[in-house]
Amino acid sequence: MREISFIQAELERTAAYVRGEYADRSGLLISAKRDLNDVLTAVDSEVQRRIVARLHESYPGDAIVGEESGFDAMPNDPRGRIWIIDPIDGTQNFVRGLFPVFGSTIAFMEDGLLQAGGIVLPMQGDLFLAERGQGATRNGQPIRVSPSDTLMASRLELDVSHQGHRAAVVQRFGGLIEAFGQVRVAGAATVGLAAVACGEADAYLHVGLKLWDHAAGVLMIEEAGGTVTRLDGSPLALDTLQTEIAASNGAIHAALVHGIL
Amino acid sequence: MREISFIQAELERTAAYVRGEYADRSGLLISAKRDLNDVLTAVDSEVQRRIVARLHESYPGDAIVGEESGFDAMPNDPRGRIWIIDPIDGTQNFVRGLFPVFGSTIAFMEDGLLQAGGIVLPMQGDLFLAERGQGATRNGQPIRVSPSDTLMASRLELDVSHQGHRAAVVQRFGGLIEAFGQVRVAGAATVGLAAVACGEADAYLHVGLKLWDHAAGVLMIEEAGGTVTRLDGSPLALDTLQTEIAASNGAIHAALVHGIL
Repeated sequence: MREISFIQAELERTAAYVRGEYADRSGLLISAKRDLNDVLTAVDSEVQRRIVARLHESYPGDAIVGEESGFDAMPNDPRGRIWIIDPIDGTQNFVRGLFPVFGSTIAFMEDGLLQAGGIVLPMQGDLFLAERGQGATRNGQPIRVSPSDTLMASRLELDVSHQGHRAAVVQRFGGLIEAFGQVRVAGAATVGLAAVACGEADAYLHVGLKLWDHAAGVLMIEEAGGTVTRLDGSPLALDTLQTEIAASNGAIHAALVHGIL
Repeated sequence: MREISFIQAELERTAAYVRGEYADRSGLLISAKRDLNDVLTAVDSEVQRRIVARLHESYPGDAIVGEESGFDAMPNDPRGRIWIIDPIDGTQNFVRGLFPVFGSTIAFMEDGLLQAGGIVLPMQGDLFLAERGQGATRNGQPIRVSPSDTLMASRLELDVSHQGHRAAVVQRFGGLIEAFGQVRVAGAATVGLAAVACGEADAYLHVGLKLWDHAAGVLMIEEAGGTVTRLDGSPLALDTLQTEIAASNGAIHAALVHGIL
């Protein structure tokens, strides 16, 4: 099976399961990880368990990196076959609801390059897929980044989830928060990156995203014609577990990087 | 007909209409109001036109205040019967999508007091209603604000929509952005206020909301057990078209107001 087909099938299954659990989440088991605002639910664990089990079946021997326990480390060979999973990105939104916006994501790397990736927004029923050199799609339709070429006419997606990052976000992005036409904070990196890929946002910034938060989104944006770098404009490193992210439609990328303090 | 019944019927009609227009918005007529980021679509105008026409039928003689042209002024008698409409709050989200989160809202005032109000989130299918002294509901079920009693464990909904307000938001709320457990920016005041009313957020701040943005939400939060004041903690004035808003579950209200610079 092609990796992108595996990703699509798994994300469709995951979305159906997560929608059911969201509707019935009043009795949800929730535990705090590093702090009160970094929570893990029984649904995160179960989604990862299911995807890992099917990866073992379909691709025995491949390395797996995932947000939840036991999988949160880079494999020994960063150029080998690596699967990257975030069972629910935006768990706080899953738990507390309203919009409700959160994503599940799977990506596949080989030879140190992102080869395939997918993001599903279960409650919106939106499935984003990308394969290296083949472009990106949303529910089967090709997507492109926006043509916006000024910050004033553009929408910035920010993330301020981790309290330890908050001061850096306010300080480094303060000028951009004032310069952009619109600013949104969804609280889920997959959602922000998918928004840039499909042209519903023009830029996304983060001071420290984990590989499972960004891998599929980065490929999605690149395949949709956009640009992703570190905050200083230098190339993204995919052989580390955490990185800064400056993602855009490309047209405003120089202005974006220039505006970061 | 009781005012709350009119509001419910109109918001249900509006949601169905707006959902249809959202699905088919590629050919949407969009015009800029004050600036590029303050847009008006043909759907905003049409929703307001329909609600105004049915108000004229059901309640001839009542005053109407609404976001769109011709209705954006306070009536001569602020203690008379006044209907307040925002056909689409979060028009940018309607136009650019993804979550997609935006609200339609109607409120009714008499004797200078909010008497009834409703907010519908068309794409989520969520209808929030409140009547003075009768509590607040979401899809018919009673709602209450959250019990969170520390900023660290709480979620702040912020709004930074209007670029003219952006510097004030960053400056006055900077400390709170760092102190809250989670921060979200949905880009629609009705959504932020409804989130506080139903306990999915704990606080909402804005440096300058219009009456049509907040009227229904303020009543909703008060009827759900929360507190709404100006940023310095003083009582809200409902006889002006624009006001600051500090809204919370009540338990964190003193800490919220104390943290504003």
